[in-house]
Amino acid sequence: MAIIVQKYGGTSVGSVEKIRAVAERVIETHKEGNQMVVVLSAMAGQTDGLIKLASQITPDPDPRELDVLLATGEQVSVALFAMTVKSLGLEACSFLGFQVAIHTDDLYGKARIHNIDTDRIIKNLNEGRIVTVAGFQGLDGHGDITTLGRGGSDTTAVALAAALNADVCEIFTDVDGVYTTDPNVCPKARKMDFIFYDEMLEMASLGAKVLEIRSVEFAKKFNVPIHVRSTFTRERGTMVVAETKDMEKVVVTGVAYNKNEARVTITKVPDRPGIASTIFEPVFKAGIVVDMIVQNTSQDGFTDLTFTVPKADFYKTMKLVSAVAEKIGAEKVLGDEDIAKVSIIGVGMRTHAGVAKKMFETLAKENINIVMISTSEIKISCIIEEKYTELAVRVLHSAFGLDVAD
Amino acid sequence: MAIIVQKYGGTSVGSVEKIRAVAERVIETHKEGNQMVVVLSAMAGQTDGLIKLASQITPDPDPRELDVLLATGEQVSVALFAMTVKSLGLEACSFLGFQVAIHTDDLYGKARIHNIDTDRIIKNLNEGRIVTVAGFQGLDGHGDITTLGRGGSDTTAVALAAALNADVCEIFTDVDGVYTTDPNVCPKARKMDFIFYDEMLEMASLGAKVLEIRSVEFAKKFNVPIHVRSTFTRERGTMVVAETKDMEKVVVTGVAYNKNEARVTITKVPDRPGIASTIFEPVFKAGIVVDMIVQNTSQDGFTDLTFTVPKADFYKTMKLVSAVAEKIGAEKVLGDEDIAKVSIIGVGMRTHAGVAKKMFETLAKENINIVMISTSEIKISCIIEEKYTELAVRVLHSAFGLDVAD
Repeated sequence: MAIIVQKYGGTSVGSVEKIRAVAERVIETHKEGNQMVVVLSAMAGQTDGLIKLASQITPDPDPRELDVLLATGEQVSVALFAMTVKSLGLEACSFLGFQVAIHTDDLYGKARIHNIDTDRIIKNLNEGRIVTVAGFQGLDGHGDITTLGRGGSDTTAVALAAALNADVCEIFTDVDGVYTTDPNVCPKARKMDFIFYDEMLEMASLGAKVLEIRSVEFAKKFNVPIHVRSTFTRERGTMVVAETKDMEKVVVTGVAYNKNEARVTITKVPDRPGIASTIFEPVFKAGIVVDMIVQNTSQDGFTDLTFTVPKADFYKTMKLVSAVAEKIGAEKVLGDEDIAKVSIIGVGMRTHAGVAKKMFETLAKENINIVMISTSEIKISCIIEEKYTELAVRVLHSAFGLDVAD
Repeated sequence: MAIIVQKYGGTSVGSVEKIRAVAERVIETHKEGNQMVVVLSAMAGQTDGLIKLASQITPDPDPRELDVLLATGEQVSVALFAMTVKSLGLEACSFLGFQVAIHTDDLYGKARIHNIDTDRIIKNLNEGRIVTVAGFQGLDGHGDITTLGRGGSDTTAVALAAALNADVCEIFTDVDGVYTTDPNVCPKARKMDFIFYDEMLEMASLGAKVLEIRSVEFAKKFNVPIHVRSTFTRERGTMVVAETKDMEKVVVTGVAYNKNEARVTITKVPDRPGIASTIFEPVFKAGIVVDMIVQNTSQDGFTDLTFTVPKADFYKTMKLVSAVAEKIGAEKVLGDEDIAKVSIIGVGMRTHAGVAKKMFETLAKENINIVMISTSEIKISCIIEEKYTELAVRVLHSAFGLDVAD
């Protein structure tokens, strides 16, 4: 008998009617002879409502107590789901984080899972019950409730699948799988049948919102196959799996973009040891996440330093960096918010030469200027002018043979 | 340093503003040098909202899962309260039933407390924290969430006070104490300074809604002084305490009434052994709670049997009893919904003769006919016509010297 872990997000369980639809689907798969573990998020809007309540008390609520508060959202979902399954004539049982138990560290609001006790779940599965587990929550070493951060239910599902040695972890969402690129930008985007963990990690970190990045890391670490599929259809979605040598694979798997960054350039920086850390210290200290960093080769003892930050942190960064630039005697600080990052991803790059060349040529052919370049083993990212984003995505998608057949 | 357990009900914590007011009051008492344990109910309306959600799924939700659902209400309250106290600059910590732990049996929806671990609470009190505990909820032997039934937060508070050997358990409510009778019926009702456990038990079981009856039983068993007082004033309320021999006490403490019963009479019942159990068997089997039962002395081998049931169960009872009356050869079954029960309560009755006589005379003087009588050691109840209820309460209140001085 196969163990299947399914995760349904907030919109999938947003009302008692939707919970019933989910229950019927779960029962169907259960009746096909599978042992079912169902991880649920809070009903859509619940978590935001609770956060709003806390913010009426204080702008900075105590993290431990905020987790106690937020954990109620998933608790409501699993109780209603188990009731529904039982009202449909099958046996079911809900478990909260502390009951499983899902052991985490005590970083409230962004806790990490250490390990999971599976005895009670396995016992209930073997007794024929459909088991439902509250996503997003765990128990720390003090016996206190923790939450795993936004999107944490994905992580709960994958971690449970790993601990239970499940056959598959199915993530149900409002799209029908992982696409080669954003279908809203590129009508020829294709749903992938499968994608490797590393590629999915790059896609997620580059802005594809289908899977929470930590759940993919977990799946990779424990080799849990993830099936990303739609709550609203019965079609197969996309399998996220481990790389295998004999799998025939295209060189480039997907094209991603991100319009949410801004660029900061400091010109004529005196090139001496430790200068980069001097510049970035106030930025890091302010909790600003720096993405790409490019430093040109030094000319006559001076260099230009360029980096990108989230658009929301742009003005703050400009202020911090302008102060430090004056102190170290740099020439000036330039900023640009009208940029976008376009990336191609694929494990095939490791063994195929000329991928970068083809990317640059493809953009050049459309007169799209490349402002910055950053590469990893399985990804090439270019910063371009924002207005060219959609065009760049479409021509790259086409150039690397990703377009759906007409 | 004194340990004080305070319990606030749903209306007292019905909004973030009200929670802040409660927090400020708790902090005040804490700063006077007391160790504070605060038991909270769910915010007003929350529990009803959750029950409605469950009822949309099924009219008969699974009891275990219903408890998982309902327990979220108190969880929200304690998290918000602890946040509020911390935002006001003091240390606070919330605990749920499973964290304390409050161990109960597994009768979901009406669980009974077995015992309470106090280590974590005491440790936190000694570290200077204000401790808040979710009312109404516990943990059973399987590690599952239970709830104690409506009004269960009172029981949580008293049980915690007993386990912690607290100096007092303060129950905050929307009235300012326990009254000699319902002030809405009798304008001369007086707030009592104190009342004995046994009297409070009779008052509660006769319809006075100030305290949940199980919490009074608990308080009596463990000799926990309860202080019933108002959330909205600083006045002293009513102390519910153990009986002491030397305490000067009036003969009658209070007058209670209950309009929620109906009367059933079976005439000319053949008087033979086991006849009563034959008659009541189908009634008890249907889960109907029978209150007063009166059987007249047998005349020529026949007797009349009269009893009262909740009005909601009247028609069901009439149907069940009519069937059994025919079977046993009784004459007929009479029913009456227009009745009320008026009772006088007081431990002084044990040592004072003539109390019953005075009650009957007082009612007779107003031409109020007594339909049934039932007495216990500290209580006399009379069933009368419903329309005389208010009059009966007022004249009894006056006759036994309970009227407030003009």
